[in-house]
Amino acid sequence: MTRPFERISSRVLVDNPWHRYCHDRYARRDGSPGDYYYVDMAGSSVVVPLLDNGEVVILEVERYLLGTKLWEFPIGGLEPGDDPLDVAQKELAEESGYRANRWDALGVFAPYKGVSNEHCHVFLARELIRGEQALELSESIDVHVVSLDEARRRILGNTVGDGTVGRSLLGDGQSIAAFAYLDRFLAR
Amino acid sequence: MTRPFERISSRVLVDNPWHRYCHDRYARRDGSPGDYYYVDMAGSSVVVPLLDNGEVVILEVERYLLGTKLWEFPIGGLEPGDDPLDVAQKELAEESGYRANRWDALGVFAPYKGVSNEHCHVFLARELIRGEQALELSESIDVHVVSLDEARRRILGNTVGDGTVGRSLLGDGQSIAAFAYLDRFLAR
Repeated sequence: MTRPFERISSRVLVDNPWHRYCHDRYARRDGSPGDYYYVDMAGSSVVVPLLDNGEVVILEVERYLLGTKLWEFPIGGLEPGDDPLDVAQKELAEESGYRANRWDALGVFAPYKGVSNEHCHVFLARELIRGEQALELSESIDVHVVSLDEARRRILGNTVGDGTVGRSLLGDGQSIAAFAYLDRFLAR
Repeated sequence: MTRPFERISSRVLVDNPWHRYCHDRYARRDGSPGDYYYVDMAGSSVVVPLLDNGEVVILEVERYLLGTKLWEFPIGGLEPGDDPLDVAQKELAEESGYRANRWDALGVFAPYKGVSNEHCHVFLARELIRGEQALELSESIDVHVVSLDEARRRILGNTVGDGTVGRSLLGDGQSIAAFAYLDRFLAR
């Protein structure tokens, strides 16, 4: 008999350039079979770009799925076999234009544990040098430099009635998590 | 011509009891068509259960997709038309056994902006009364009561070599985000 929460069978339903959508059969707590539909992703890398003066680079990103812009740290998906640090360096350069000479790994989290097996790798980028963005046609991204406090405020999203106009009410979960790992790192 | 980041067409590829998996055609930055594959979810509610003595209730949850246990706050998915607070109250009771007399809405975030349109609603639950869990066969959840500092440490995941044995290295992004909204609320 299959042990609880072990796989019985797995099938890829949709394969596309970004991820695979799969249907597994698995053993539930009592050993009886259950269905699991999920996104299979090699992972992602998110970067906190910290300037020498203590300010931070954040992005204002058009998000098709949400129909709004979000305040975010640079992030990009891994393909199978990719090294998380390589992807972090590539995405920082392409999305923000900045390159960094100093990198630290801050932690790893599951952004969407119920529906995706993705592991998101958090990096701190320091000793930054400014350059040019290289965006894809699927991307619309504006680069901003703000204080840490202001970045936290924007990334959490605004609350109704706080007087800010034209900004997203929605926070960005992955950037909020990256901020928490930055806090842990800076407190050491 | 369709405006950038507006939908051209949409098709449900897989419909299951938990979400829909869809394929859209949309206008990219220059108006040319692009493909978007994503999870369509009505949303979710996550609850920070805070006891009168300042301790917090956290869950040790078996996660099939990740092959490990995660430290989490109670969370549950919405179905179309559900009220986020109703789902928060139901999930707190079922997953932790606790009921709460006092509820506050702390914020809303997108947990997985690139692949899901889900909005995750964060609630603070206070004036708690302990009762019995009511788990589904798909769930294996242990309930723990710890200090806020200890909860933060566990939810962020452990780093290699920190001396902890048998605990997940992985943080839980949604619970980390919920913690950030709690911090914002408590700092007011």
